[in-house]
Amino acid sequence: MVWFKYLILNPLIKSSSKSLLKTTPRPPTKNFALFSLSHYYNFYTTDASSSSSSAATAAVVNRFSGLGPTAAAGEKPRVVVLGSGWAGCRLLKDVDTSLYDVVCVSPRNHMVFTPLLASTCVGTLEFRSVAEPIGRIQPAISKEPGSYFFLANCTGVDADNHVVQCETVTDGLNTLNPWKFKISYDKLVIALGAEALTFGIQGVAENAIFLREVYHAQEIRRKLLLNLMLSDVPGISDEEKCRLLHCVVVGGGPTGVEFSGELSDFIKRDVHQRYAHVKDYIHVTLIEANEILSSFDDRLRRYATKQLSKSGVRLVRGIVKDVKPQKLILSDGTEVPYGLLVWSTGVGPSSFVKSLELPKSPGGRIGVDEWLRVPSVQDIFAIGDCSGYVESTGKPVLPALAQVAERQGKYLAALLNRVGKTGGGQANSARDIELGDQFVYKHLGSMATLGRFKALVDLRQSKDAKGVSMAGFVSWFIWRSAYLTRVISWRNRFYVAVNWATTFVFGRDISRI
Amino acid sequence: MVWFKYLILNPLIKSSSKSLLKTTPRPPTKNFALFSLSHYYNFYTTDASSSSSSAATAAVVNRFSGLGPTAAAGEKPRVVVLGSGWAGCRLLKDVDTSLYDVVCVSPRNHMVFTPLLASTCVGTLEFRSVAEPIGRIQPAISKEPGSYFFLANCTGVDADNHVVQCETVTDGLNTLNPWKFKISYDKLVIALGAEALTFGIQGVAENAIFLREVYHAQEIRRKLLLNLMLSDVPGISDEEKCRLLHCVVVGGGPTGVEFSGELSDFIKRDVHQRYAHVKDYIHVTLIEANEILSSFDDRLRRYATKQLSKSGVRLVRGIVKDVKPQKLILSDGTEVPYGLLVWSTGVGPSSFVKSLELPKSPGGRIGVDEWLRVPSVQDIFAIGDCSGYVESTGKPVLPALAQVAERQGKYLAALLNRVGKTGGGQANSARDIELGDQFVYKHLGSMATLGRFKALVDLRQSKDAKGVSMAGFVSWFIWRSAYLTRVISWRNRFYVAVNWATTFVFGRDISRI
Repeated sequence: MVWFKYLILNPLIKSSSKSLLKTTPRPPTKNFALFSLSHYYNFYTTDASSSSSSAATAAVVNRFSGLGPTAAAGEKPRVVVLGSGWAGCRLLKDVDTSLYDVVCVSPRNHMVFTPLLASTCVGTLEFRSVAEPIGRIQPAISKEPGSYFFLANCTGVDADNHVVQCETVTDGLNTLNPWKFKISYDKLVIALGAEALTFGIQGVAENAIFLREVYHAQEIRRKLLLNLMLSDVPGISDEEKCRLLHCVVVGGGPTGVEFSGELSDFIKRDVHQRYAHVKDYIHVTLIEANEILSSFDDRLRRYATKQLSKSGVRLVRGIVKDVKPQKLILSDGTEVPYGLLVWSTGVGPSSFVKSLELPKSPGGRIGVDEWLRVPSVQDIFAIGDCSGYVESTGKPVLPALAQVAERQGKYLAALLNRVGKTGGGQANSARDIELGDQFVYKHLGSMATLGRFKALVDLRQSKDAKGVSMAGFVSWFIWRSAYLTRVISWRNRFYVAVNWATTFVFGRDISRI
Repeated sequence: MVWFKYLILNPLIKSSSKSLLKTTPRPPTKNFALFSLSHYYNFYTTDASSSSSSAATAAVVNRFSGLGPTAAAGEKPRVVVLGSGWAGCRLLKDVDTSLYDVVCVSPRNHMVFTPLLASTCVGTLEFRSVAEPIGRIQPAISKEPGSYFFLANCTGVDADNHVVQCETVTDGLNTLNPWKFKISYDKLVIALGAEALTFGIQGVAENAIFLREVYHAQEIRRKLLLNLMLSDVPGISDEEKCRLLHCVVVGGGPTGVEFSGELSDFIKRDVHQRYAHVKDYIHVTLIEANEILSSFDDRLRRYATKQLSKSGVRLVRGIVKDVKPQKLILSDGTEVPYGLLVWSTGVGPSSFVKSLELPKSPGGRIGVDEWLRVPSVQDIFAIGDCSGYVESTGKPVLPALAQVAERQGKYLAALLNRVGKTGGGQANSARDIELGDQFVYKHLGSMATLGRFKALVDLRQSKDAKGVSMAGFVSWFIWRSAYLTRVISWRNRFYVAVNWATTFVFGRDISRI
């Protein structure tokens, strides 16, 4: 503490802080300056002006209730992107902001790095490490005068007039009532993603937690830690303890498997140490109607099955019929009591996507042609999980993968940039412009982690193609390295690495905040 | 990517993964093993057994509805700690678990490092970096058979029978209904802290956010980011924009000043860059009825006033009369519209502390003697903000500071350890045991940061005593160093340092999760 002593006894520092203080403006009567309200800031007072000001507000609202057409105002053409997932964000990142103004409309102001979301539920990673703010992906939206991010939902698309209707997201806060506004677009990119499928099973939406957004992961984490603590409180029966600590995952796709793996790893490494009183009551069950990881080959699936079983995950083949608050019922009548229920049985088009009066692909997604344009309308494109080839292209609908979405975003940004450079940026002006190559999807392979130091890597283009597929520690290493390099910003890349390192050294954090 | 290629083409790795796969048990008919339910786990089925099992549950609940007296069971004496703040956690940390079993009852499973909480609202620090799980502070509670942490509120103290009544916290989740249980104690330490004071002003609890828990900081952050984004959406009047982005802090104590400083720093450094469209609309106002930082000396106060004004914080002297959802009203009738209202006007005893039938100190805290014992009852101690000297001691009630609470926790742990060693650990057995020195509080000084690179440090024992007091960059450096060394675990110390470094390099994170 010598430096400390030195600092506080150093006369130079004392005098410098004194000299700063000398220049303080001294108000005439008081010891220090607390400025009076009227002097400093024109607050509204309780006189009659309030009624006139609210009339003014109404006028302003009407005048600026949206962004008008760009052609009239002489602005750059405007690309409106609906959604902030893999597809929308990749497009936003690559679009040339010297050619276009970009406007992104989404109910969340960040992109979720979904492959790492399962890790955040148990504290291997921090929530913030897997969320990338849109403003960091495309800085123009926070700086350029014509580029914006709007925290809103799209409520309608008027293709004839090149306008989208939106409504703000206010999140139940009493700050402000939600309100509607319109945005004229020159190019519209629909990248709204998909919704979790519940197959019409009752009680899923009310009782299960999906795993698609950061707040889902937060909810899972809070519930898991709550159940762990509640099961330790005196007065609880063994049966109830078993129920509370029974974590059920429905759906054996990569998300379900990865979450089960992380959970069993958390139980083995952290629960045994930090919740020693209840460690024998906690169990993980994975329920799947068909086969787990059906996109991987047999060998890898067998490896995954073995690894999961070894780490204590119970694999159950069954079909869920009904979901009640504390138990679910399988089609054979078996009742499965649970404390935590995570649902990941794939995704399908959202009700909003279904309601749009646009051509559709088989399966109800927004139909697109080979250039990802929506046929029969002008200047509308659809990418990611919400879009699929129309039947007339003769191409199959692509799987709902981050990989597909990102590749489409990249392709479409390049296409729009090309169109913009050749003067086709404005609405209705790209009819005769050469669009270049069609979008072609080449599958780069699949990866899935199975928890501690184990993963699957399948680098073949399809299940029947030749190529490399492997499982084990090396795969796990490839899995971590690959995702670390794919995290978008250096900040988050740094944090993911730091999180992994601290989890390794100190174990997972268990504070329930 | 040479290493990558090497890895996937290395035959050794391939064969090793194959050899792993060979050992997979192959079920007779299916391609991979999905175990049947009945084989693996005895789920309840839909027969008549359910009614009998619920009767069994009720019996179990009655039998184990609490922790009984330790003397009868031959266990170590039990110290029950109510609360997990500075006082309770310091006690938990220091108590000798070879002498005592410890049971902590609190509605949160972590301690909040309150001096750094203001920094988390704007993203300078992560929420998790300022939360320390109780299990890390005192590992015995997660491992020792007789030591527990219960996520519960204390609902009553029965001093005659040495029993506390508790009720679980279930947080509104449908997992489980809250239930009551009892804990017998040999020593009871009440460390329940205090509640934010609202002075009976209407609307404070509904509309203002306090700054005492991590979820408060989360709420402030979410609301601030929401308001920043909403004010950017078309259709909003300038007047409404001003209101939404008007951040009002009521209370000019260290918390209010530090939060204002952090906020103005966030505005200067991050809002100007990331919300350029609305940067001219955002303002911070600090309302205080008397003087800001009244515990610091005039010179430091003047410096603070000047620095805050320089960084754009409006200091307003006023008394809040009424708080409405979108505006507050001062006693002179001025209306102050706001988008975010943070309330930090000090703390007072909670209604539960007031309701306890125990001796009280002036001001309504739980009364204690010079050894922090509650007079007139056996084996009950009170420490931290919820306790104060009874009048007969002739000592003044100590200020509600983390410093006081922590020192009391440390003192009481040593006292209990001494008592335990001399055989006075059991209930009603410490009457004739020498308690040692009385608790004496020596103020080590106060610190407060004013935002970017500026802080106050006052190392005098009281306002009129001699000693070192200073302000400026060096103080800020001392402030950071001092708090970094005081963060409890190495994990969080590491994270706080990493957070500070990344904020410095990359700016604050603005994703609203």
